[in-house]
Amino acid sequence: MRDRGPQRTEQQTGRTGVDDPATILPQAPELTAQEIGFLREVGQQLRVDSVRCSTAAGSGHPTSSMSAADIIAVLLARHLVYDWSRPDNPNNDHLIYSKGHASPLCYSMFKAAGAITDEELLTFRRFGSRLQGHPTPAIPWVDVATGSLGQGLPISVGVALAGKYLDKLPFHVWALCGDSELAEGSIWEAIDKAGYYGLSNLTAIFDVNRLGQRGETEYGWNLEVYRQRAEAFGAHPVVIDGHDVEEIDAALWNARQAVGKPTVIIARTIKGKGFSEIENKDGWHGRALPPDMAERAIAEMGGVRHITVQTRKPPPVGAGHTGAPSQAARVTLPTYEVGTKVATRKAYGDALVALGGLPDVVAMDGEVSNSTHADEFARAYPDRFFEMFIAEQILVSVAVGMSVRRYRPFASTFAAFFTRAYDFIRMAAISEANIRLTGSHAGVEIGQDGPSQMALEDLAAMRAIHGSTVLYPSDATSAAKLTAAMADTEGIVFMRTTRGAYPVLYSPDEEFPVGGAKVLRSSDRDQVALIGAGVTLHNCLAAADQLAREGVSARVIDLYSVKPVDEGVLREASAVTGGRFVVAEDHYPQGGLGAAVMEALAGDASPPRVAHCAVQDLPTSGKPEELMEAAGISAGHIAEAARTLLNGARLEPAASARSRSQGGAPPDRGGN
Amino acid sequence: MRDRGPQRTEQQTGRTGVDDPATILPQAPELTAQEIGFLREVGQQLRVDSVRCSTAAGSGHPTSSMSAADIIAVLLARHLVYDWSRPDNPNNDHLIYSKGHASPLCYSMFKAAGAITDEELLTFRRFGSRLQGHPTPAIPWVDVATGSLGQGLPISVGVALAGKYLDKLPFHVWALCGDSELAEGSIWEAIDKAGYYGLSNLTAIFDVNRLGQRGETEYGWNLEVYRQRAEAFGAHPVVIDGHDVEEIDAALWNARQAVGKPTVIIARTIKGKGFSEIENKDGWHGRALPPDMAERAIAEMGGVRHITVQTRKPPPVGAGHTGAPSQAARVTLPTYEVGTKVATRKAYGDALVALGGLPDVVAMDGEVSNSTHADEFARAYPDRFFEMFIAEQILVSVAVGMSVRRYRPFASTFAAFFTRAYDFIRMAAISEANIRLTGSHAGVEIGQDGPSQMALEDLAAMRAIHGSTVLYPSDATSAAKLTAAMADTEGIVFMRTTRGAYPVLYSPDEEFPVGGAKVLRSSDRDQVALIGAGVTLHNCLAAADQLAREGVSARVIDLYSVKPVDEGVLREASAVTGGRFVVAEDHYPQGGLGAAVMEALAGDASPPRVAHCAVQDLPTSGKPEELMEAAGISAGHIAEAARTLLNGARLEPAASARSRSQGGAPPDRGGN
Repeated sequence: MRDRGPQRTEQQTGRTGVDDPATILPQAPELTAQEIGFLREVGQQLRVDSVRCSTAAGSGHPTSSMSAADIIAVLLARHLVYDWSRPDNPNNDHLIYSKGHASPLCYSMFKAAGAITDEELLTFRRFGSRLQGHPTPAIPWVDVATGSLGQGLPISVGVALAGKYLDKLPFHVWALCGDSELAEGSIWEAIDKAGYYGLSNLTAIFDVNRLGQRGETEYGWNLEVYRQRAEAFGAHPVVIDGHDVEEIDAALWNARQAVGKPTVIIARTIKGKGFSEIENKDGWHGRALPPDMAERAIAEMGGVRHITVQTRKPPPVGAGHTGAPSQAARVTLPTYEVGTKVATRKAYGDALVALGGLPDVVAMDGEVSNSTHADEFARAYPDRFFEMFIAEQILVSVAVGMSVRRYRPFASTFAAFFTRAYDFIRMAAISEANIRLTGSHAGVEIGQDGPSQMALEDLAAMRAIHGSTVLYPSDATSAAKLTAAMADTEGIVFMRTTRGAYPVLYSPDEEFPVGGAKVLRSSDRDQVALIGAGVTLHNCLAAADQLAREGVSARVIDLYSVKPVDEGVLREASAVTGGRFVVAEDHYPQGGLGAAVMEALAGDASPPRVAHCAVQDLPTSGKPEELMEAAGISAGHIAEAARTLLNGARLEPAASARSRSQGGAPPDRGGN
Repeated sequence: MRDRGPQRTEQQTGRTGVDDPATILPQAPELTAQEIGFLREVGQQLRVDSVRCSTAAGSGHPTSSMSAADIIAVLLARHLVYDWSRPDNPNNDHLIYSKGHASPLCYSMFKAAGAITDEELLTFRRFGSRLQGHPTPAIPWVDVATGSLGQGLPISVGVALAGKYLDKLPFHVWALCGDSELAEGSIWEAIDKAGYYGLSNLTAIFDVNRLGQRGETEYGWNLEVYRQRAEAFGAHPVVIDGHDVEEIDAALWNARQAVGKPTVIIARTIKGKGFSEIENKDGWHGRALPPDMAERAIAEMGGVRHITVQTRKPPPVGAGHTGAPSQAARVTLPTYEVGTKVATRKAYGDALVALGGLPDVVAMDGEVSNSTHADEFARAYPDRFFEMFIAEQILVSVAVGMSVRRYRPFASTFAAFFTRAYDFIRMAAISEANIRLTGSHAGVEIGQDGPSQMALEDLAAMRAIHGSTVLYPSDATSAAKLTAAMADTEGIVFMRTTRGAYPVLYSPDEEFPVGGAKVLRSSDRDQVALIGAGVTLHNCLAAADQLAREGVSARVIDLYSVKPVDEGVLREASAVTGGRFVVAEDHYPQGGLGAAVMEALAGDASPPRVAHCAVQDLPTSGKPEELMEAAGISAGHIAEAARTLLNGARLEPAASARSRSQGGAPPDRGGN
C-alpha cells in the first residue's frame, strides 16, 4: 500500500491547502455585541460552576478549569456540533478533555448544555456519582477516560483518522490540552501523525495557563516555543488570547474550515481567571477553594447562573458506520495441516486477512508489519490499514480512538514494545475501549536478536490490566481461531505470538473458546501435569515423551487462554495427579503463566504443588534451542522438574531466586 | 529552587551562546588529502567488517551499519576522546548507539579501535559471545543496552546532565540515532530536555538513510522536517552529507565547540552504502548478506582491512566523581513516634533529604514533587535535583544516564505514571542500571481523584522486571528505612508509597532489610495468617482485632519486601496456621502481593491455601474508606475471608473473576 500523507489527502478532497492561517483568519464572521456578552456570561457560569462543584467536593481542579472556561464557552455555544440527547449519533463532534483534571469545567459544560442538572453537578467526586475526579465513559458524553496526561490528544488522532478515512463524515474532533502535558512525547507523536495523515478534522487547543502542579511549566507563557513546535510537526498553529471571545471564535471558526492539516490553537490564558485573589498565582493547582473563598469568588464573577446553551445539532443520522458488530465466527479462517511447521505470527496475519471480510475490522502496526505479519492485511485492505511507524504510544491510542468510533482495531508490534504503551493500555481499560493487541517475538525463543527484543514480562503486565484477556497460542490452528475470537471479545485483548515455526498441533475443526484450555495427553493414571503455552507447550510434549519412556504418565495442558484461565481443566488435573504440576513459560518467573495457574487454584482446599520452569537470568543472543536450554525451559528441564516432583524432593521457587546478570555463570533453573 | 534553563547555563559558563551554526561551521580545521583518504579507508573497513560479522552470524543489520560507517569513522579517528584500556576513566566521552541494531558497526568500531580482535568480531550473535544482537553492558565499552528504539538518546541526556551539572567534566556525549526512531515521542522529550538544560556537551547524530524495516520512513530524505523539529525543540541543527568525510568532520568539530545548546547533526546517508547491489534498496533491513553476496560486497569495498585507529586520549583521571559508593547505613534518618499519623510518601521525602548527605545521591521528579515529597530534597539540594516536568520516559532515562555516571538516582512520580516508562524500566534492567523509582498515590486508597491516578497494576509490572526489588512500606518508620536501603540496593528498585497518613507502627530501632518481613501479631496458636503491605496492613491489623474478639488468633505479616519475599516467614506462618493465608492488597488480583506469596511457596510439599482480597472492579471516585470497602479489601472483608477459610468453605479465586465496569452492580469480593 502507499502511505497516506497530506498530499494524497488534498488530492482526495479536491481542495487546495491553505498553509498560512493568517490568510484565513479574517474570513471568520464577526460577533455582535450581544453575542460577545452572551459568550462572556457563559464563560463566567462555567467558572462559577467549576468553583461550586469542587468546593462542594472538597477537592478538584477549579483553577485549571477557569483558565479554559472562555474557550469552552465559545466552543459549546457556537462551534461544537452535538446532539446531547443522542450521544451515539455518528455525526456528533468529539470533544476530548486531554487535560482530564479540568473535569469541573467538563461537567459544568454538561450543565450548560442541559445534559445534567445543577444538582447532579454538585455530586462531583462523591462515591456513587458518575462525575468522577477525572472524566470516564461512565458518562455518556465522554468518549474516553483521561487523567493520565498526554493521552487525550493521541486518542483524538484515532477518532479523526476514523472520521476522515473510514466514516468519511464531517464531524470535527476537538482536544483540550493543558500546557503541562505538552512535555509528554506522546503529544508530539500525536501532532506528527495528525500532520502526516492530513487530519484537518482535528483541532488541538493548548490552554497555556503557565502554571503546573508545583510551579511554572517548562516554557511558561513562551507561546512562540509551542507555535514553532506545532508548525514543525505538521499543524497550522494559531496563537490567541484565550480570554478574548472574539479571538477564540475566529480561531475555532477557522479550525473547522482547515484544509490539509490539523489546527493547533495556542491560547494564552490565566490560571484561576476570574477570581482576583488567585489569578496567575502559584499554589492553587488541584485545590478546591475553601467555602469562604468560594463565596467571594462567585460574587466577583457575578453570582450563580443557570444559562442553558443551545449547541448546533448534527445532520440527521446518515448512512455512516452503524457500529453493529458483525460476527467473526462466520468468517472462513485459514487452515493448516497438522504437523507442518507454521509460526503463530504467520497464522495471525492469515486470519487477520480473513477477518478483513468484516467491514469494521481495521489494523495498524508500528513499522514491523513484515515481522508481525500484519502486512498481509495491509496488502489486502490498504484503506483499513494505518501505518503508525515506530511510535507505540500513538499506535495504541489510535486503536482506542478507532474503538470510540466502534471499529474493531487490531494493533500489532513486537510484544516487547507494547510495554512502551503500557500506560495507554492501562487507561484504555478505564476507557472501556475494545482493542486487540498482538505482540510477536515473545521470549528467549526469538534467538539471536537478544534481550532487548524479547518480551519476558508481557504476560504479567497484560494480565494485570483491568478486564483484560490474554491469549497465547502454540500452533497455527489455535492462533487463527483465537485471532477470530479476539474480534468478538470486548475489553483489552492481548495475544502473544511466537517468532519461530513449530508443528501444527490441531486440526481445523478444533475450537478454542476464550477461557478454555486443551488437554493434549491424558489418562486417569497421570502422575503429573505439564502445563505450557506457546513454545513451551512443544517442550512439554517432548518432555512427556521422555517421561513416557521412563514409565511416567504425564498429562499435557495447552493453557492458550492465560486470562481468563480454565480452572476446571486445572482442577481436574490436580485431582488426578495428586496436585503435581510443572508449569513452563518463556517469561520471567513473576506474574506470568505460573502465577495464572497458582492464582486460579490458590483458594482450593489443597492447592497443587507447582514446579516452575521460567526464565531466571538475563538472556543473551544465541539459537532458540540454546537459549531455552540456558533459561531452564527446555524439554529436559521440564522432564527433570517432573521427576523431582515425583520424588517428593524440595523445589526451589522460581520467583524467589535473585537473578544475576548474563555471563558465564550457570543459570538457576526453576524446578531443579 | 529555580529551574535551570539555557539562560542560567550561559550565565554560569560565562560564555555567550552561538545560535547560528552556519556562523561557526567555517572555523573547523581543513582536512588534508591524506587525512581524507585515511578516513574513507576506515569507513570502508567498518562496512566490510559489518558485512563480515553479520554474514558469519547469519543475521543482523549490515545495511543499517553501512549507512553510518563514515560518520563513525570520522568520530572515532578525530573526535571521540576515549581510553579503550580504561573504560572507567571518568573523562572518557560517551558514545551511545541509540540505533542499537547497528551493532555490527559498533563492534567493527571496537575492532578498529583495537579493543577487540578480528576473531572475536566474528563471534557476533553466537551463544556465549558478549557481542550480542544489540549492544549490552556485558561489553565494557557499552554504557547501556539499546535495541528498543528511542531510548539511547534520552539516556544520553542523563549522562550529559551529569557531565555538565554534577561531574563538571569536559567529556562529550554522542548519540547515534536512526531515522526510524525519530517517530518515538521519547526522542523529542530528550531533545527538549537537552535544550532546556542547555546541554552543549551532547550531540545527537541522525543517520537518515531513508529506509525503515518494512519500507520508507515517515519522511524519507526530507531532512528539512528534522531540521525544523530539532531547532524548535531547542537544538542547533546541522544538515550534512553523511558520506562526505569533510562535512562530517566539520560538523563534529563544531558540535564539540557548541555553546548553550545541544547539537543535532542531520546526516543524509544511504542504506547499504558501499555495495551497489543493495544501496538504497528496500527489503534489506535486518538481513545478513548470503556468503556469495558478502564476497562481492567485500570486493567492491576494497577487501578486508585491519587498520587500527588511535583515538584521542582523555586527560589523566582528575578529581571528578569517583563512584565509590558511600554507605547509606551511616545516614541519620528521620524518626517518627509510634501512633502518630504520617504518610509513607512524606517519610520518603524526609529520608531522601537525609540521604542527600551522601554526595552521589541525586533526585528527579515528573512535576509532582509536592505530591511525592521529592520537593524536600529539591529545596535542600537544588544542585542535585532535576525537574523533568510531565515526561516520565525522560524521567527514567535520565536516572539511567546518571547511573551510567555512577550516581545514585532517585526518580519519583505517581506510581500509576511509571507505567508510562515501562519499556524504559525493562531496558534499564538489561542495561544493569542502578536506579531507584518511588511511586506515590498507589491503589484505590487515593480516593477522589479516581482510577486514572490509581496504580493498581504496578506491583505486577515491577515484579516482572529482571532483577528488580519491589518494596511497599506501611508506615513512616519502615518507609524511611527502606528509602535508605534503596540507596544501597543494586538494580531496579521500586518503592510504592501511599497517599494518606496512617499510624506509625514501628519504633525507630526496628530494621527492615530488603527480603525481610515483619510479624506484627503471632502466637503458636495462630489459626490463620493475614498478610498485607501498605494500607492493607492496617486493615489486616483491624481484621485481627475483630477476629480476636471472636476468639480467633490471627498472625499478621507486613510483607514490606514484595520482591524478594521472605519465604521463611511465610513458610513458618503456613506451618503454624495449617496453611491458611489471607492476602490483602490494594492492587488488581493478578501478579501482585498475592502472586508473590503463592509463587514463593508453590513448590512446597503443601502449599498454603490463599484467600485473596484484591481490587476486582474498576474503581470510581470516593473517600478512601468507601473505595476500600467497595473493592473488598477493608478490614471487614479480610476478617470475613479468614472466617471462610476457617470454616473450610469453597473460596472464589480473586484472579479468575471477570471484572465488570464500575457502576451500581455490587463488586465481586475476593475471599467471599
